[in-house]
Amino acid sequence: MKIVILGAVAAGAKAAAKIRRMLPDSEVIIYTDDTHISYSSCGLPYYIEGNFDDYTLLLVRSPEDFEAKNIHVFLRHKCVKILPKCKQVLIEDLENNRAELVSYDKLIIATGARPVIPDIINNNLKNIFTLRKIEDGIAIKEKLLKSKKAVIVGGGYIGIELLEAFVRQNVHVTLFEHNTHIMKHFDEDMSTLIYDQLTSASKGRYDIFTSEKVNEFIADENNSVKNVKTSSGREVETDFVVIASGVVPNSEIAKDAGIEVGYKNAIKVNNRMETSEEDIYACGDCCEDHMMVSDTSTWIPLGSTANKEGRTAAINASGSEDIFKGVLGSAVTRCLSLTMSMTGLNVKDAAALGYEPVFVTVTKNDKVGFMPDVNNITLKLIADKKTGQLLGCQAVGIGDADKRVNVVTSALLAKLTARDFYNNDITYAPPYSPTIDPLLNAAQLLASKVD
Amino acid sequence: MKIVILGAVAAGAKAAAKIRRMLPDSEVIIYTDDTHISYSSCGLPYYIEGNFDDYTLLLVRSPEDFEAKNIHVFLRHKCVKILPKCKQVLIEDLENNRAELVSYDKLIIATGARPVIPDIINNNLKNIFTLRKIEDGIAIKEKLLKSKKAVIVGGGYIGIELLEAFVRQNVHVTLFEHNTHIMKHFDEDMSTLIYDQLTSASKGRYDIFTSEKVNEFIADENNSVKNVKTSSGREVETDFVVIASGVVPNSEIAKDAGIEVGYKNAIKVNNRMETSEEDIYACGDCCEDHMMVSDTSTWIPLGSTANKEGRTAAINASGSEDIFKGVLGSAVTRCLSLTMSMTGLNVKDAAALGYEPVFVTVTKNDKVGFMPDVNNITLKLIADKKTGQLLGCQAVGIGDADKRVNVVTSALLAKLTARDFYNNDITYAPPYSPTIDPLLNAAQLLASKVD
Repeated sequence: MKIVILGAVAAGAKAAAKIRRMLPDSEVIIYTDDTHISYSSCGLPYYIEGNFDDYTLLLVRSPEDFEAKNIHVFLRHKCVKILPKCKQVLIEDLENNRAELVSYDKLIIATGARPVIPDIINNNLKNIFTLRKIEDGIAIKEKLLKSKKAVIVGGGYIGIELLEAFVRQNVHVTLFEHNTHIMKHFDEDMSTLIYDQLTSASKGRYDIFTSEKVNEFIADENNSVKNVKTSSGREVETDFVVIASGVVPNSEIAKDAGIEVGYKNAIKVNNRMETSEEDIYACGDCCEDHMMVSDTSTWIPLGSTANKEGRTAAINASGSEDIFKGVLGSAVTRCLSLTMSMTGLNVKDAAALGYEPVFVTVTKNDKVGFMPDVNNITLKLIADKKTGQLLGCQAVGIGDADKRVNVVTSALLAKLTARDFYNNDITYAPPYSPTIDPLLNAAQLLASKVD
Repeated sequence: MKIVILGAVAAGAKAAAKIRRMLPDSEVIIYTDDTHISYSSCGLPYYIEGNFDDYTLLLVRSPEDFEAKNIHVFLRHKCVKILPKCKQVLIEDLENNRAELVSYDKLIIATGARPVIPDIINNNLKNIFTLRKIEDGIAIKEKLLKSKKAVIVGGGYIGIELLEAFVRQNVHVTLFEHNTHIMKHFDEDMSTLIYDQLTSASKGRYDIFTSEKVNEFIADENNSVKNVKTSSGREVETDFVVIASGVVPNSEIAKDAGIEVGYKNAIKVNNRMETSEEDIYACGDCCEDHMMVSDTSTWIPLGSTANKEGRTAAINASGSEDIFKGVLGSAVTRCLSLTMSMTGLNVKDAAALGYEPVFVTVTKNDKVGFMPDVNNITLKLIADKKTGQLLGCQAVGIGDADKRVNVVTSALLAKLTARDFYNNDITYAPPYSPTIDPLLNAAQLLASKVD
């Protein structure tokens, strides 16, 4: 049995390791156009921020670790063609300009996603970065440590995390978001709250501009970005730019081979991570996700999901049986001392899917008020008016916000109603929560809003 | 409509406020033998610890607040007899030695619980305290601030919380637990871990002795405790003693009136908080709880539960309908930097109820390993082998332990199996959790252990 894996950041690396344990005698080969494998892409902002200096801490397993387990790793080897009928892949050695036709019994596509580069004049100047790979992180950190001013294009998760990282390294940040709101996975009321809390905590360290599109990068004499010009006519000087305008799945190679793609061009898979072509699996950021709340297709590229999908793909490719039931859209991030977390559907998406969303928003202490480290959290809890089914939760605050969201994940998984959930018995002690947790408070109010 | 409420710490106070909102024209009277009403008993250790100096921060509502809402409060008025057939209660004014027969339409018993005083020689000496009421907290703090050495009898929640409080106030603590383990609501493996972690962090600030019964308090010339003598022959000098050997429900007054009592002598109630006698309700620490995991009776006196029960009792006493579905046995506490949290049944109790408990224990990072504030947590996840139903979770660690337990509460509420739960999508980002959360790790291992 020969198993070929394309890509090995999270899903591919997990799949390779799992197959080796499932089928000790199989041949397992990884091809990747990357220079590293098996690393924490999500950790890059924290490396840049200076939480640790050694980037190799981001590497989970080295090519040598894999070789020691008889898994062959070919770095800088890109798959340029999949031939499902021939059960072969065409691999191009990017360093030596050689191509090779490789046969497989099972193919696992784990090609991930890549940053979107918006159509901005001069977007190919020097010192314009994106953040995805290890070398991106190293390059940004190197530049950051010699800089005073940075511009970030995009106010999603990566943009917000880099804002923290840059500010902690004493570099002034100007962040532009062309949408009306930053963190647009949240509902607008919550995004507004995030914006308000971040701007009021700035103390001159950063500026955030929404509804402002970057139109042009202006070059200095070395072809490096010098100024950034926006749709409002604003011009901001900068030492470098990071574009964090979202990602798209690396699914072209699959689509080209006739493999079905779906939501946002991510590769279609069933719950065994099988694609539309026999013996070809996909996992990680390149493939679609099943949203368990609504039983619909979605695409939420995340490292935690990639790991689970890689495992399921490996088990099925090995001839055993495993099901990956899907995702809940759970996410969390931090910007300075603010935590932003969500799970499930937001109001807008829920309405688009045919639900009749009702919600409750509460702002409360995260602990009993007399505790010295008490802080506010704002919680939004969403349910369907007709069935009462809980649909999602969003939380923002200096206080312990992600804890509350994670209580809701299990409730979404079980498709509990607001009324069911209101009966929850969450742990209570003054250092951990108020007597009645804000979450139960919200659930109780929400229960009275559903039919 | 005249509603009489006996006791008003958490459940009784909540009930009074709720009734006033439900029935604006009713007559609501509170009788309590206490000197304060509507306070956070759970906050007393944190007041003693010095997190705040003004004990009135523990008071949620004052008698004046109640009077302003036309709720009459009689402090130091003890109910000495309930006459269900006559719908009357006999109230003794403890300050003026007068008794009065009071009629009611609805009676709500919220008499709480009281500390157990073990049968130790000289247990009536001066400077031997228990902690339950506001004046207990004030007296202990006053003594603490003039002391160098304290002895705590009992290593449950209160004992452990007071150990933290005393140590933070630079008083050396010797804690004696007559059982083989402290924190005995946890399984022995987890209690052992708690003991090991606490003793290794002591640095001479405290000693914890298990399997050691206090036999005698030895008096000085002022009839104050001077030495504590234990079953091992050990004699420890001390400035004062706190007895924290558990609590019992104040249910005698109900039992005496022919009202049924059940588990551990707590007052039997249905899910409307009705007792066996018509128009008499009970709520809070004096009454039984319904354990939702196993659908059995239990008794877990906690402030958060008392609040919910008070609300339900009030709604039903007011003639509307409300159901309190029960508890999950969720609890959390802190001792210095260690968090201990649990929900559901432990292995011993599960086995006693006829389950065939299987479990998984994992010790993992609470965040991604490269984050600067990463810490260990140990998680124990328990399921029934035959049905796969999740039964409970226990977590101990410097790291973010209670967060994981609260994810399990919703799962217990929904009676999810280990396999269902393993599909959970918990939020992930390096400052908040590892890529695969320890909880999902444990769930995955547990799923392979059930039939």
